[in-house]
Amino acid sequence: MRLARFRHQGRESLGAVHGDGVIPLPWPDFDTLFGLEDPAAAVRAHTPDPARAVIPDRLLAPVRDRAQIIGTGGNYADHVAEAASASLVVTEPVFIPFLWGAVIGPEDDIVIPFPDTQTDYEVELAVVIGRTARRLTADDAMDHVFGYTVVNDVSAREVMAREKMQVMLSKSPDTFLPVGPHVVTIEEIADPYDLGIATYLNGEVRQKSRTAAMTHRIPDLLVRITRHCTLHPGDIVTTGTPGGVGFGRDPQEFMRPGDTIVAEVEGVGRLTNRLVAGW
Amino acid sequence: MRLARFRHQGRESLGAVHGDGVIPLPWPDFDTLFGLEDPAAAVRAHTPDPARAVIPDRLLAPVRDRAQIIGTGGNYADHVAEAASASLVVTEPVFIPFLWGAVIGPEDDIVIPFPDTQTDYEVELAVVIGRTARRLTADDAMDHVFGYTVVNDVSAREVMAREKMQVMLSKSPDTFLPVGPHVVTIEEIADPYDLGIATYLNGEVRQKSRTAAMTHRIPDLLVRITRHCTLHPGDIVTTGTPGGVGFGRDPQEFMRPGDTIVAEVEGVGRLTNRLVAGW
Repeated sequence: MRLARFRHQGRESLGAVHGDGVIPLPWPDFDTLFGLEDPAAAVRAHTPDPARAVIPDRLLAPVRDRAQIIGTGGNYADHVAEAASASLVVTEPVFIPFLWGAVIGPEDDIVIPFPDTQTDYEVELAVVIGRTARRLTADDAMDHVFGYTVVNDVSAREVMAREKMQVMLSKSPDTFLPVGPHVVTIEEIADPYDLGIATYLNGEVRQKSRTAAMTHRIPDLLVRITRHCTLHPGDIVTTGTPGGVGFGRDPQEFMRPGDTIVAEVEGVGRLTNRLVAGW
Repeated sequence: MRLARFRHQGRESLGAVHGDGVIPLPWPDFDTLFGLEDPAAAVRAHTPDPARAVIPDRLLAPVRDRAQIIGTGGNYADHVAEAASASLVVTEPVFIPFLWGAVIGPEDDIVIPFPDTQTDYEVELAVVIGRTARRLTADDAMDHVFGYTVVNDVSAREVMAREKMQVMLSKSPDTFLPVGPHVVTIEEIADPYDLGIATYLNGEVRQKSRTAAMTHRIPDLLVRITRHCTLHPGDIVTTGTPGGVGFGRDPQEFMRPGDTIVAEVEGVGRLTNRLVAGW
């Protein structure tokens, strides 16, 4: 099932995507769904009725309120290399918490700060946690994954270049975390390491890779995280971005007001956001 | 007023500290209080009735559920210097989001991970945000502060030494964020830059400074943050730690199971936690 959070006739709801429409689900929101004992089983047991489909007025970020959202850095060798050539060296996959206040949905705009801080894109396949996850093993990690979504880990490169520990001002400005357009349940993706992953800036391809190129696969990332940090239902963990970002190009090239950025993971979703000036 | 979150006869409540007891407040929890239009005015307008005081069974972390909690690094010159001598250089105050899952209260234990990752203490004066804060100015910043509390920003130094961008695994392991014991409303602290700030490990003084030594004062920190990131009611921002942490000592010395660590800010609170082994 593909789940969407949406607004229709002034009300926010959760729905199953059905063609251009959505079929409202019995849970009003992700908080309710992820408050269940076994959200994945509840969704599997439900058959949406196509006769009830509606056309949403607006798609919203498919994220639980105040979820913990964790970015993974340094998980594609070509991106690690381009970052190192721009003096940003990482020696292992790094995990960075985002502020939930930075999240926007698939119909929202990314606001470029003033003064401009070199706003860059990073497409990432992300997993949505379905069950409380603590000290996972490689064998049981995927049992805790509810589904997948796409995250565009928008980054202020000028801030990172100045000070690499400045992870909040570089990664979590308001609107810097587009998520969506949907959450796809885990059984819909036969092999998460056989997916195209790409960004298109104003229609021009910028990042283009396959998830097979991840250095550390999803169970490995979840084992590393949950050895120390408990994950909760509805939390989101990204899996890293491939090469091709703007600050790795020669000359470097960043996003501008008026641009459109598409972050896409094959079979999971295509997340499109416009860029606007914050001044 | 000093506010405490506490458990009494199986129920969690919010109360005003009164001697050894607490007087239940009309708001059941911080979510309700911080959902009000003006939480500070609501608290000011309320007079707790001492006849209703109870002795709490347990004090809980005085934090709103799923609050954004932001750590400030590099705001006391002596700590910046000791960190630099341990190869951790920062060039400006840095802001690091914590996972809310790491928060514990004043009666909880800090769990040292296995294998041990060099568990260190950092006492910090923290502000609790009372109103949505966006693009604050130095003049209006303090109007958005509800009160103060104490945060012990427990840190895994082995993780930071290996990779300084590894900010989640070093700062947000489960139990690494003791907060409390209370939230003190802003009018109770005449001058937040004239307070003693200290840690005591097993009764022995380790950090000892005054908040006068902050390089960047609270309005400056809030201006820097809210230029890019909106803060929400109940969010917490720390203001940095002074010199004297374990990894700045020669030889370095870290906390051990069985230790007791006290983080204290004069007039705000004394936060005591025991250390236990996570294995």
